[in-house]
Order: sequence, then C-alpha cells, then structure tokens
Amino acid sequence: MASIKNPATEALAPFEHMSKSDTILLRKRLVGESCKLFFRSDPLKIVRAEAQYMYDEQGRAYLDCINNVAHVGHCQPDVVAAASRQLAVLNTNNRFLHDNLVLCAQRITDLMPEPLSVCFFVNSGSEANDLALRLARAHTKHQDVITLDHAYHGHLSTLIEISPYKFRQIPNHKQADWVHVAPVPDVYRGKYRESEHPGEDMGALYAEDVRRLCEKATAGGGGVACYIAESLQSCGGQVVPPPNYLREVFRHVRAAGGVCICDEVQVGFGRVGSHWWAFQLQGEDIVPDIVTMGKPMGNGYPVAAVVTTRAVADSFRDTGVEYFNTYGGNPVSCAVANAVLQVIEDQKLLQHAQDVGDYLLARCRELQGRHSLIGDVRGVGLFVGIELVVDRTTREPATAEAQHVLSRMKDESILLSSDGPDRNVLKLKPPMVFSKQNVDTVIEVLDQVLAELADEHADLEPEHAHQTNGKTNGILAH
Amino acid sequence: MASIKNPATEALAPFEHMSKSDTILLRKRLVGESCKLFFRSDPLKIVRAEAQYMYDEQGRAYLDCINNVAHVGHCQPDVVAAASRQLAVLNTNNRFLHDNLVLCAQRITDLMPEPLSVCFFVNSGSEANDLALRLARAHTKHQDVITLDHAYHGHLSTLIEISPYKFRQIPNHKQADWVHVAPVPDVYRGKYRESEHPGEDMGALYAEDVRRLCEKATAGGGGVACYIAESLQSCGGQVVPPPNYLREVFRHVRAAGGVCICDEVQVGFGRVGSHWWAFQLQGEDIVPDIVTMGKPMGNGYPVAAVVTTRAVADSFRDTGVEYFNTYGGNPVSCAVANAVLQVIEDQKLLQHAQDVGDYLLARCRELQGRHSLIGDVRGVGLFVGIELVVDRTTREPATAEAQHVLSRMKDESILLSSDGPDRNVLKLKPPMVFSKQNVDTVIEVLDQVLAELADEHADLEPEHAHQTNGKTNGILAH
Repeated sequence: MASIKNPATEALAPFEHMSKSDTILLRKRLVGESCKLFFRSDPLKIVRAEAQYMYDEQGRAYLDCINNVAHVGHCQPDVVAAASRQLAVLNTNNRFLHDNLVLCAQRITDLMPEPLSVCFFVNSGSEANDLALRLARAHTKHQDVITLDHAYHGHLSTLIEISPYKFRQIPNHKQADWVHVAPVPDVYRGKYRESEHPGEDMGALYAEDVRRLCEKATAGGGGVACYIAESLQSCGGQVVPPPNYLREVFRHVRAAGGVCICDEVQVGFGRVGSHWWAFQLQGEDIVPDIVTMGKPMGNGYPVAAVVTTRAVADSFRDTGVEYFNTYGGNPVSCAVANAVLQVIEDQKLLQHAQDVGDYLLARCRELQGRHSLIGDVRGVGLFVGIELVVDRTTREPATAEAQHVLSRMKDESILLSSDGPDRNVLKLKPPMVFSKQNVDTVIEVLDQVLAELADEHADLEPEHAHQTNGKTNGILAH
Repeated sequence: MASIKNPATEALAPFEHMSKSDTILLRKRLVGESCKLFFRSDPLKIVRAEAQYMYDEQGRAYLDCINNVAHVGHCQPDVVAAASRQLAVLNTNNRFLHDNLVLCAQRITDLMPEPLSVCFFVNSGSEANDLALRLARAHTKHQDVITLDHAYHGHLSTLIEISPYKFRQIPNHKQADWVHVAPVPDVYRGKYRESEHPGEDMGALYAEDVRRLCEKATAGGGGVACYIAESLQSCGGQVVPPPNYLREVFRHVRAAGGVCICDEVQVGFGRVGSHWWAFQLQGEDIVPDIVTMGKPMGNGYPVAAVVTTRAVADSFRDTGVEYFNTYGGNPVSCAVANAVLQVIEDQKLLQHAQDVGDYLLARCRELQGRHSLIGDVRGVGLFVGIELVVDRTTREPATAEAQHVLSRMKDESILLSSDGPDRNVLKLKPPMVFSKQNVDTVIEVLDQVLAELADEHADLEPEHAHQTNGKTNGILAH
C-alpha cells in the first residue's frame, strides 16, 4: 500500500476508492499482464453503467457499442433485483433440488428445436464449450475436432487447441493432431470469394472443405467427434456464413459419425433479431446436436449452458462419470437467467434488435457509398461488422486505419472495437436496448472520422504510399 | 408444461414455484443425468439457507456440515449487500480499469508469502486449475504433469486427465502420456503406512516417488511442467500429508525444472484455522510457484483466482497471447470476494475455525474410543475426515456402513457426505460459522447411529459375516 496515496487527500468520484493513476499502478503491479486493457495507452476507468451507457470516474458518458454481455442493458433493474432477492435467500449447488434450475432449463429448451431438450449449467462460455467437446467425444467415441480458421472458443487449454485465433499467436505452437482447421465461410475475404464464384452455391463450396477434413480425420484413425463453430463468427471478423453452409456441413459431419456443435456464446439470445439463435438463420431444418450459450445469458452474472439431445446426454451419463459444477445452475444464476429471458420477452428485444439492426446496416451501407475505406458491411440484427480496406480491389486490410478510427471514436465518447485476423473489422454488438438514435450518433461520428482520414490520405498522397502489409501507416502515428 | 400441475392448486412453500414431485420430474426430463443429486433415492429440495442451516420446502432445518462454498455462512448479509450494491452500479469486464479488482488483488497477495504477487481472476476452481497448467507450461516449456492418485482438480477436459478420481471411472480410459500419478501421501491407508514405517520420515518417503516420476518425465522427453496437488486432499479422502512432504516434493520438482502448484480451491481462505492457506501447514519456508483458489472465495458467487510469481506471469505474457476471461475479476465478483475477506477478518473466523476444529477433532477421537468402526480421525481446522473400517487391523473400508450413516444422519437433519476412493471417509467441511454446539449435536447423533450399527452387527454375528469387499452388507439393505 506504500505507494498508494491516501484516498482522503484526493477528490474521488462516487464509487471510486483511489485515483485512476493509482488504479493503473496497482493493476500493473498485481494483475497478470496477459490481461489486457481496452485502449492500452489511455485506458478507461469505468465506475458505473446503465443501459447502453458507461460512465468514467469524471462522469463522462460513453455510448457502448461493444458489450454484448450486458445484453438487456447494463444494470437492468429487473435482473439486478432478481439476483439480489435470490442471493439473500439461497445460493447453493445443484445437488439439491431447486425450482429456478428446472424453470430455467424449461425456458431454454422451449426456445430450441425439438430434440434439443437436455441442459447442463456451467459458469462461462469457455466451460460450456469444453463440456460440449466432452459430450461429443463420449457420444461418438471419436477424438478429432473440426474447427474454423480464426475461431475463438474460449480460454481453456483444450479450447486454445481448437482456436486458431489464439494458437497461431503462440511461438512454435504445434497444432494438435486431433484438430482440423476448416476455412472460414467468409465470402468477402475467405478462401472462396463471392466475387470470384458468381452464382455458385458458396455454402456447399465451403462445406466441401469440411467434407475433406472428415475424410482425413477418419483416415487418421481419430474419427470425427465434432464440428464446432460459432453460428456467426465473431472474433474471426463478424462473418455471416452463406446460405446452405450449415446444412451441407452437418450432412458431411454426420455421415462421418460426428456431431455438430453451434457456439452461440456471443450471438445467441436474440441478438440476430429474427430468431433466438443464430444457427436458425440457416433454415428451420438446421438442428445442431449441441448448442453452447453464455455471455448474454446472465447479463454479466457468470452463467452459461450446454443444451443437447437426450441421446448425447445419455451417452455422457453412460460413461459413469458424475458431472459436478460447483456454481453451475445454482438458484442465483438461474434466477438471473430467467430474469434476462423475461426482460427479452417483455421488452420485445428480438423485434427491437431486428428493427434497429436493419436500420444500422442500412446506414452503414450508406456510409460505404461515401467512404472507399469501407470494403464490406455485413451482419444481422445487432451483430454488425464494417470491414475497412485500403483498396477495394485488392481488399488489403486497413488495419492501422481501423485502430485510428477506434481511438477517434473513443475521443468522441463512442466505444467500438475491431476484430478479424487483420483487426480491420469494426464490430458492433451493443446491448440490445441500443436505439435508432444511438445508430444515428455512431454513423454521424464515424462519417466524420472517416472523412478526416480521407482528407489526411489525400493530403499525403502520393509521396506516402501505404505500407503493403497494412500494419503501419505513417499518418496514423501523428 | 403439460405435466406440471398448476401451482395454485397446491400448497407451496414460500420460494417454491411447484411441488417437489414436479421439480423432480422436470429435473429428470431437462437436466443431464450426469449431474447427480445428493441422497438420490430421496433428494432434498432446499428453498432457503442461513449461516450453517439449510431449510427444505416444509420448513425443516438441516445442519450443514458439507457446504464449504458457503464459507462465511449461507446468505451472509454483508456479502449479499456487497453483491447487490455493486450489481446495481456496474458489472463489466476487466478490460476497463476498476478499483474492486485491484483492491481484491492487493488483499489476496497481502495474504500470500512474498514472491506470490500476481493475480489472474477467473470464475471457478476448474478455470483456475486449467489456467495454472497453462502458466506452468508457458513458464517451463515442459509438458508433463505430476498429480496425485485419487486427485480431483475440476471438470474440464484437461483437468479430467489429471484427476484419477474421475478418469479411473471412465471405461477404457487411456491415461495421457503427459500425466504421471504419484501416490497419495496418506499415512493411514496409502502406499506407505505409518504403522509399517515407525519413526521414518514419511514425507520424504512419499516425496521419493515424486522424484522418480520427475526422472521418468524428463527421460520421456516431456519434461516436468508441474506438480499439482491440493494442499490437503479432499475428494481423495480428507488426507493430511505428513510433515516434510511438500518441502521434499518441491525440491525434487524444481530440480527437474518444474513448478509447484498448490490447489487451495477447497481448503483455502482460513479453513485450516491456523493459517490462511493449507500449504502453510507444512512450514513457513513452503512457497508454491502457483496457488489456485475458488469455492469459498465468493461464498457461492462464481469467482476464483490464480496467484503466481512475477516470473511465471511474465513467461505467460511473453507468449503474446492475451488472456481474457469474460467475467473474471469483474466489479461484482471482486466486491463479493472483498466482502468475504472482510467478514473472515471481522469475525475472526480463522481463530474460530481453529477452536471449533480442535474441539471437533477431540470429540471425534472420543467417539473413535467407543466405536471400532472408526479406523482413523484426521484433519485440521474445519476440514475433518472420519474413516470407517470394518476391521481396524485389515483396515477394510466400511463403504456400505458409511452410506448408511449418511442416510441416518440425514434422517436426523444433519447433512454429511463421504469421500475417498472407497467412499468410506465421512467428511466435515462446514461453513466456518459452525459452532461447538453444532459439534456436540453432530457427535451425539453420530454416536447414536454408530451404536445402532454396532447393535445390528452384534445381533447378526456370526451367521452374517461381512462381504469381504466391503461394498455390500445385508443389514444395511433394511
């Protein structure tokens, strides 16, 4: 404590215990540096939040376009009340019967297509995906996993192995022999581009790669335990797979004796607007064997789940190994999840996400018409990506420009982030209460920031051409 | 919902939404059967809890001797208030600066010996142990893990591999080649028994097996990444390692280039009474490289942590891979952890655990004097095991008798459980507010139940001798 000034000697904001500089100092000293801050050079200290707004220690409000965990809005009063009420009454493990758990299981399975009827409750999307792999392996008695390039499925050892988004960063990482990486079904920048395959069934084309990996896994002796993918790839760059993709993938994977896992941790619970789950965008006939869900489920409270079929759950039971998760499905986490579901229904947030999302996409496309830096606009509901490119023909990623945009948006009190392998895709995944007026604000500021960038480019051309790797750009250093 | 009766037609308890039979029905239908209930044939529906008491739907109170998660007592008011207050203000991820996180890191590292100064916050003990393995491997660049027989370190894929308690149950499970299983340092029933090695340094003897496994791991090419063990083995049967054990183990493991992980998920936060952490029982000079903690940390709220040295944390940072845990270290979980620590201090619960624990051990030993079924009594603070044996000489485990005792104790409104590979060790790990009066109640009832058992045995001897495997026993079927 020696270096921390006495809080009484400084003017602190409500909810503050120390000055921002002291928070930074302690964080640097006491928290692993692998845990990164947003806006590293000038991080934000957020002391309170409400709905789609976050407030720093000086009372400045930021419009939150990125916190998909605060699904029904930061500190939503019904959710807070449900948690607080239950915390005061009972919070114990699921080896005791409790109504909240079975009611939550009932609500969630009621939102799923028919054979998906059995729940396992866990604490995080990572725990959910890890359990999904255990279920798949127990059911198929196969070992191998087919995953997508640039995928991220969680921070656990086994999940890092199936997350190229992470493992490609590890020096000398040897891809596990049970992992097979399929191309991202990204028709804009992926292996097969719509522009180069006009009129083709892009879904079938991408699925064909999965079929080949199934053959390889079978020939290798591991067999296909599962295909796992986010229904819409998030960290991979806000990718919406082409029609027919999951239908064809599921067919190939099941023919090889594998099961199909849809990771809805980031995109579930109505974010896509037209449906509760993003896999449903691919057709009413698309039914995974296992669905994982997390982030939005507890609006910030750690609760997540795996939903599967009776057949898969029974195979897992038949291994004879009890599955015990200390907090999974406890009365508080289920009270919270039930409250979140109730708010989504009461406030008709699916319809809202569809309306606002459509408006957001339309306004982004308008911007695309004015700014050549925007190569692609894609998404569905309140899951939107704006891909920045240096050149629309070569599609060279505008990585540095994207980082500059984020920084400028923050100056203008708008929280945005970027993702994708080249970090050039601006991503919007705001709390579901995001309004059309919020969209107007974002578009207006983004328009202005992109115009500034275009001006700076125009001023400097042609002497300062872009670095070809798109990673550095002289102007942005200023 | 078809099969669920209208709640209005039945008399339901406060906090009940449906009758117990309907809860059971829905649970069976909608929750994976791998998730087991306590007292399967007649499970408990618990609707509220307070301090060391749990209440069923009929208002019946049970004395809770098993829920170590409810560390400072079920629904402890200060902890509930801290959670509720913070939930209403801000609950977001640790990419934003927040005082609760750094204050929590400071409190925890202040309770650790010197070089353990860097925290990572996660949601569960499982997530903590998985991260500990990632840290160990990143730091040592080795792969192999030395674990204890009967160990349980969590429900995740990688942790099942190092948990013989679980993997030995899986049909045809092939032990991973990077896993090495050392004998449990159990001087009562283990590989080396105190009775057979009078006067020997039992710690050094058991550690010698670890040394041999280090040699094997090194020769095999994987190298020793880490030794991981609970500081006191819980599921393995409430085992207290002999003096000098960790000192010798740490010496061997470090000589092989590995790091030492103490899993304090079940036994940390002052349960042992004399110290905050159970590894400290082995001496002030015993300093692990990584400590994991969980269950008691949030008193039921999902929060857990990994504490390590700057050197290990920096090795992990140097892999270049960000570690992001959605809820880990959020303002609510840290508010809760800080409140738990404050309650432990304010109520002097370490001293209390030591006083009540000493009394509990003394009274158990008194019982041991009267009941030959009790083969061993061991423990420290409020972590106690009573090992039941059919015969004190052969030490044949009294598994069926133990199950009978649990069932009879439940009839008498006392919640107890059993563990160990033979499920013959009655384990007590109650909320830390457990009183001497509670001890008297438990001892009195246990005395009576053991007397009944002895009477039944006496009545039936000699015609009905024990089954030699100790798994079935005619009388207990009645």
